[in-house]
Amino acid sequence: MSNKYVYFFGDKKTEGDGSMRELLGGKGAGLAAMTKIGLPVPAGFTITTEVCDLYYKNGKAYPDGLDKQVDECIEKLERSIGKKLGDRDDPLLVSVRSGAVVSMPGMMETILNLGLTDESVEGLAKKTGNKRFALDAYRRFIMMYGSTAMGINREKFDRIFDAVKNEKTRKRLNISADKKVNDTDVDDNELGEVVKLFKELYKKEIGKDFPQDPKEQLWGSISAVFNSWMAEKAVTYRRVENIKGVVGTAVNVMQMVFGNKGDTSGTGVCFTRDPNTGENIFYGDYLINAQGEDVVAGIRTPIKLSDFEKADKKAYDQLVGVRKTLEENYKDMQDLEFTVEEGKLYMLQCRTGKRSPFAAFKIATDMVEEGLITKNDAIRRIKDRDIEGIFYPIIDPSQKDELKKKYLVNGIGAVPGAATGIVVFNAKDAEDRAAEGNKVILVRKETSPEDVGGMHAAAGILTATGGKTSHAAVVARGWGKCCIVGCESLNIDYKKGEFSVGDVVVRAGDSITLDGTSGDVYIGELKLKTSELPDSYQKIMKWADEIKKIKVRTNADTPYDAKKAIELGAEGIGLCRTEHMFFDTEERRLAIQEMIVANKVEDRVKALNKLLPFQREDFVGIFREMNGKPVTVRLIDPPLHEFVPHDESKQRELAAKIGVKYETVKQRVDQLHEANPMLGHRGCRLAITYPEILDMQVRAIIEAACKCKKDGIDVKPEIMVPLIIDYKEFGLIEERIRKLSDEIIKQNGASVTYMVGTMLEVPRAALLADKIAERAEFFSFGTNDLTQMTMGISRDDAGKFLPDYVDERKTGIFMNDPFQSLDTEGVGELVKIAAERGRKSRPNLKLGICGEHGGDIASVKFCASVGLDYVSCSPFRVPIARLAAAQYEAEKKS
Amino acid sequence: MSNKYVYFFGDKKTEGDGSMRELLGGKGAGLAAMTKIGLPVPAGFTITTEVCDLYYKNGKAYPDGLDKQVDECIEKLERSIGKKLGDRDDPLLVSVRSGAVVSMPGMMETILNLGLTDESVEGLAKKTGNKRFALDAYRRFIMMYGSTAMGINREKFDRIFDAVKNEKTRKRLNISADKKVNDTDVDDNELGEVVKLFKELYKKEIGKDFPQDPKEQLWGSISAVFNSWMAEKAVTYRRVENIKGVVGTAVNVMQMVFGNKGDTSGTGVCFTRDPNTGENIFYGDYLINAQGEDVVAGIRTPIKLSDFEKADKKAYDQLVGVRKTLEENYKDMQDLEFTVEEGKLYMLQCRTGKRSPFAAFKIATDMVEEGLITKNDAIRRIKDRDIEGIFYPIIDPSQKDELKKKYLVNGIGAVPGAATGIVVFNAKDAEDRAAEGNKVILVRKETSPEDVGGMHAAAGILTATGGKTSHAAVVARGWGKCCIVGCESLNIDYKKGEFSVGDVVVRAGDSITLDGTSGDVYIGELKLKTSELPDSYQKIMKWADEIKKIKVRTNADTPYDAKKAIELGAEGIGLCRTEHMFFDTEERRLAIQEMIVANKVEDRVKALNKLLPFQREDFVGIFREMNGKPVTVRLIDPPLHEFVPHDESKQRELAAKIGVKYETVKQRVDQLHEANPMLGHRGCRLAITYPEILDMQVRAIIEAACKCKKDGIDVKPEIMVPLIIDYKEFGLIEERIRKLSDEIIKQNGASVTYMVGTMLEVPRAALLADKIAERAEFFSFGTNDLTQMTMGISRDDAGKFLPDYVDERKTGIFMNDPFQSLDTEGVGELVKIAAERGRKSRPNLKLGICGEHGGDIASVKFCASVGLDYVSCSPFRVPIARLAAAQYEAEKKS
Repeated sequence: MSNKYVYFFGDKKTEGDGSMRELLGGKGAGLAAMTKIGLPVPAGFTITTEVCDLYYKNGKAYPDGLDKQVDECIEKLERSIGKKLGDRDDPLLVSVRSGAVVSMPGMMETILNLGLTDESVEGLAKKTGNKRFALDAYRRFIMMYGSTAMGINREKFDRIFDAVKNEKTRKRLNISADKKVNDTDVDDNELGEVVKLFKELYKKEIGKDFPQDPKEQLWGSISAVFNSWMAEKAVTYRRVENIKGVVGTAVNVMQMVFGNKGDTSGTGVCFTRDPNTGENIFYGDYLINAQGEDVVAGIRTPIKLSDFEKADKKAYDQLVGVRKTLEENYKDMQDLEFTVEEGKLYMLQCRTGKRSPFAAFKIATDMVEEGLITKNDAIRRIKDRDIEGIFYPIIDPSQKDELKKKYLVNGIGAVPGAATGIVVFNAKDAEDRAAEGNKVILVRKETSPEDVGGMHAAAGILTATGGKTSHAAVVARGWGKCCIVGCESLNIDYKKGEFSVGDVVVRAGDSITLDGTSGDVYIGELKLKTSELPDSYQKIMKWADEIKKIKVRTNADTPYDAKKAIELGAEGIGLCRTEHMFFDTEERRLAIQEMIVANKVEDRVKALNKLLPFQREDFVGIFREMNGKPVTVRLIDPPLHEFVPHDESKQRELAAKIGVKYETVKQRVDQLHEANPMLGHRGCRLAITYPEILDMQVRAIIEAACKCKKDGIDVKPEIMVPLIIDYKEFGLIEERIRKLSDEIIKQNGASVTYMVGTMLEVPRAALLADKIAERAEFFSFGTNDLTQMTMGISRDDAGKFLPDYVDERKTGIFMNDPFQSLDTEGVGELVKIAAERGRKSRPNLKLGICGEHGGDIASVKFCASVGLDYVSCSPFRVPIARLAAAQYEAEKKS
Repeated sequence: MSNKYVYFFGDKKTEGDGSMRELLGGKGAGLAAMTKIGLPVPAGFTITTEVCDLYYKNGKAYPDGLDKQVDECIEKLERSIGKKLGDRDDPLLVSVRSGAVVSMPGMMETILNLGLTDESVEGLAKKTGNKRFALDAYRRFIMMYGSTAMGINREKFDRIFDAVKNEKTRKRLNISADKKVNDTDVDDNELGEVVKLFKELYKKEIGKDFPQDPKEQLWGSISAVFNSWMAEKAVTYRRVENIKGVVGTAVNVMQMVFGNKGDTSGTGVCFTRDPNTGENIFYGDYLINAQGEDVVAGIRTPIKLSDFEKADKKAYDQLVGVRKTLEENYKDMQDLEFTVEEGKLYMLQCRTGKRSPFAAFKIATDMVEEGLITKNDAIRRIKDRDIEGIFYPIIDPSQKDELKKKYLVNGIGAVPGAATGIVVFNAKDAEDRAAEGNKVILVRKETSPEDVGGMHAAAGILTATGGKTSHAAVVARGWGKCCIVGCESLNIDYKKGEFSVGDVVVRAGDSITLDGTSGDVYIGELKLKTSELPDSYQKIMKWADEIKKIKVRTNADTPYDAKKAIELGAEGIGLCRTEHMFFDTEERRLAIQEMIVANKVEDRVKALNKLLPFQREDFVGIFREMNGKPVTVRLIDPPLHEFVPHDESKQRELAAKIGVKYETVKQRVDQLHEANPMLGHRGCRLAITYPEILDMQVRAIIEAACKCKKDGIDVKPEIMVPLIIDYKEFGLIEERIRKLSDEIIKQNGASVTYMVGTMLEVPRAALLADKIAERAEFFSFGTNDLTQMTMGISRDDAGKFLPDYVDERKTGIFMNDPFQSLDTEGVGELVKIAAERGRKSRPNLKLGICGEHGGDIASVKFCASVGLDYVSCSPFRVPIARLAAAQYEAEKKS
């Protein structure tokens, strides 16, 4: 660690640069970069993320020497600008902003107009010749400092301001009761009153006068930024976004520029391309005569960039130049914040812009075609959520009449896709109702960082105010979650728990449907359908398939799933669970239950013979769909008690249906009870105890294969034995499978070839992989169970303690939930050991993974890195796995 | 594999020798050895165990060339003896006996007098001038061949013989109805009748005449021996004795010699030392005018060797010579079978003799002192069951009046020790009642190989007939199981399920007590006590401690256990389970339950404060006992639901006692329910969720240590964190332990030093051992849980399938129950990995094992071989672990 804690920027010179994101945070690095390129950036300095880290490590104390370095930078800033903090004639004002390495929109606090005091506000008024402007800046500063740095409830300030507006401004301007009093309507006298009342509130709440020393204001603000790093909402955001290993936020102190200096001033937020569609157009919002906060908070609805061009062509053209420069520099779509002060453009921020899933594909492919980036870059930029996002549903357009009948209102379509669900009005209800299994639509006037948890839980978000760059839009876009903003006709009454549009009243719990593309809102539930995949998706996936090496199979138990998975690019079935087939119809269920209740081999065989034709037909269907592609069929795996009813009435019903005594059923079910079913009588242990079940399943598979083969279908069955722990155990079962299979093949005169392998899911099997591979032709890592046993964690019970292990504030023991992303250190080590040992005795041993990790990007990359032949995942995750496989290769090359 | 299947012996020359036990079996090797030394052994040949192996591998077909080799040997035998098989004047008769590499007494079948036919029986009569003898030999042969080779129920033969005896002999000799007709009373006419009836029975049962071709008889008998290898009783014996990896039995064909040729003939079984006490005296039984089977079967009660000396000094002296020769040759106590034919001694078998636990120690130490063997040999000869055996109880002699009052009858004390239990009359009842948790005494007229399962299940065995070398005695001795034989006053009625001695009737289910040392039987249950340890035990253990390197600790939760373990040689406590302490009194139980039901930290702390003084006092008691020896204390491990009641009435009771609502208790208990508690919220996961529990326990340990230290006691606490799966997890807990401990030590001003380490019981921890060892000062392998997770087997549920895995006939997948003897291939591999990785980052890392494997000989040797510092086991197993540790060193040296 160096002892340099503060980095200055200004006058086209910088102490840091754009590559120092870790240290300066995203915002600080962006400011340094833009300053260096020569873009118009107000001067300032960045206090590093390292200080934040040290601040927390030292029990909220700053490292030695920081104060001196800050003082020096302020002096430098004062010299550079020629103004002094707190000056009674022409004071220097600064903003204080947070900026972590990862963009956390709206999470960190910002304080503007710092440096204003009772004395310097006069200087500002004098210098600008605009008393109203100076007082407006002061009242904003008192409110931001009071609420953000000192923790006073912001609503208390709002109420004071509203009171003055209603009691004084409304009277003065004679505004009727049904109209709103705008901030701009308030005059300097009234603002003076507001400032007085704000300071009184401050004193009442804090017990001290509002600080009149700008240095005290500055350090109060710096602390506020650092403290916000561990605030509930910031931690929640990091949890939801799975942001780990980031040490803290930087603090950016920068000369104030003013977008609220009248109609030749303004402030804006823009994207260098359309963040929704990805189109190569300049996209953004501009608010005339406003400070930056007003745009992001969505309080006023802004104008479009095209209107900005009309309003101030010179500033606009300057901004277009900046757009080009930055895209060439960063080679990615940028999200910019800027302010125009009396016609002069200032850049306040630039960062890689969040984008919708559709835009992610479009921008990536466009930039390849524009020669800005390579195909590998494009592949690496796509995230799993982008793929998920483009598979999000749209409203089924065939419901034409319904659409007309149910149409309610139109807002700004901020994030495309569609969602239907029940209305809730706050984040907590959203989380609670979603946890109960409901799809919910969160309806808010505007959203704020406190709402992030509820927004994440919701299927869709609808706000009454705000533009496409408001908090709600930005956050939802990151998740590809359907969102409509700025729906101003919405009249929300939180207290009553309802909103109305004209005469129509919608209450909490009622269903509505959102179309995030058009911005249309509908009453009731509409049918959704999957949206069509854009060309850019097809391009990226084609490029991905060209470079990826590890194959992607799917977990599919039905011909329907198999077909769907092939459409999504699956190269085979890596896991076909046979037990699900037993539940398909009552006839099947009864047969398996009869088999379980039987206590003689003959009776079991009788029941199994009823199941045989069903199972055979299932396999025929699947083999047909997979023509030419391998199909790994796993033999029955769950413990038998999962197939039988556990309550008396159902047991009696079953007994009657299969013609045995109730006591027989009850006794058998009781007998099947296990203390730890995960480690119980399941998997191949069933084949050892009841070889007749094994025989039936093998017969079904091989007879189906023979039938298909005769019909000209290319069948590649791979019979997979679950839960193997020993080579002798595998050998016995394999021998039995081969004997029966070869007999059936011979009887049928079909030239079917098949493989026999094992699901590798018990630690012992991984350790004995060399011996098991002497007989097994393939291993498929069942990483769900392997994780349970290797870590000693029952997935069903993990809810009681695993969250504490993943929660950074509590322990931070694990970076990720090991059931979502493979634990590469522990479970992965066993996978490596098994792969190495297995290949040692059988060099062409086929290796795959069929746990749910097969559809997780990091896990797929790990699998590729240890040399597995394929991953297998649910059909819907197949494209993600393909992408991950390609990303692994792309990263290797870079 | 060679193509030599048959090995000849005779005329002091042999094709095989004593070292070829694997190939020739124990009996065959013994015969070859004795023949080579020049002892009088009838000529014959051995068909190898390899043939048995091939026989089963080829679907019960013999290898090519076997018949030719057997024919050649028969010719050689005929030449050597000068008689021919089936000869009508002077036929050669042979015996056919089994003989596996491991002695399996009574398991394999024997056929005598083979070669007798309707024709040759006349020749034998003529040659011996003894028609009665010839016919008696023939009727025995038909019965043995008919029952053993052809599977006719032996009782059918017995009934025919009894009928002739009762209807003809009784009348002829006018024997009164209350007396028994002896076999020797039957004359040649009557025997002729028996032979006729036996052959008729044979024809009726088999559908063919009794074979008159000796070669057909021979092959039938050879097949019978091979088939008996896989008979139920043989397999059961191997299972009970845990005999594995033995390919089959050999077949020994040998010239018949006759102990039943009148009063100068006889047959005997003897041991070169006393198999009960180990004393260096000649010990055995002799039956005048009898064939070998009569001794072993216990049908007649034999005379002692001293009486044999009186009866036939010459033969006896010859036998004494043999005894000396063989002990010098084998350097171990031998079990011999011999026959005297008309004054001439023939040796029929020699093998290492089974002995009682006391005898094992005595013989081993005596032989060291006699210079026959080394101390290392002595150590290697002691078995775990020998140690268990000498700890077996005796009847508490303080019950003098009781002893007098309850004395019933005296038999032959065949295996020392005492046993008390309820009477059962057959093997099945013995197994069933024992499985219900009863101690049972198996009472039989005589035992047979079919009874082995029941004998094993019984606490003691009592038979009405047989001597110290009868089946019951030999089998029970091997197990060190209390056994009384030859209790001839016993009148057993199997049908009524009772036995009587005079007027006293004892029914199934009544209690009796056996004194296996004196042979006394008592009515009712007597108090037993531990017997005193013999000097020879102390000697062996002293020698063991001199060479063993790995230390032996004990698992002890109370000062009482700790004290007992030290007496048995424990060098520390390797596992002190703290949770058992919570159940000691109601007060403690209530406090822990109150803690669990509480849902606020403050309430939990309040309840924990009640537990603190108890736990501290427990540790004080243990530290005192262990003065100077290390004590590993494991923090609370089981899931909390194990501490709370699960039925409504007890929950209501608890609620009332701790002053909360019943619903609160119920809800909390329901909440604690887990699908797989083994992999649930337990171990250090409790410390993560409820650090206040950790704090209380650490406080109790360290405060106790400080107190003891002040009292001048040398305390070495080792705090062990259970169920660790990650180094960060361990780091967090270790930090908390150290902080609190150091604080307490400082407050107390005591110079206590302590260690912090982990129980290594989850596969992931083994894989990450290097990182965990950076903070952990010791690992203690919890091989119970490590086995469960590595093998994916819940111990509580294993009963449903694990027996199939260990049963050789079903699968033979595992040699041993992995919960009894460590699975060295799988679990052991993880132990090795963890030891290596752990020592890599901390070379002086202390390593131990505290699973139940710590008291298993093979597992202790494994632990020594991978470099562990200690094993820990229950107090009673400490001597076994010490012995195993020494055996490992002794074996390394040899």
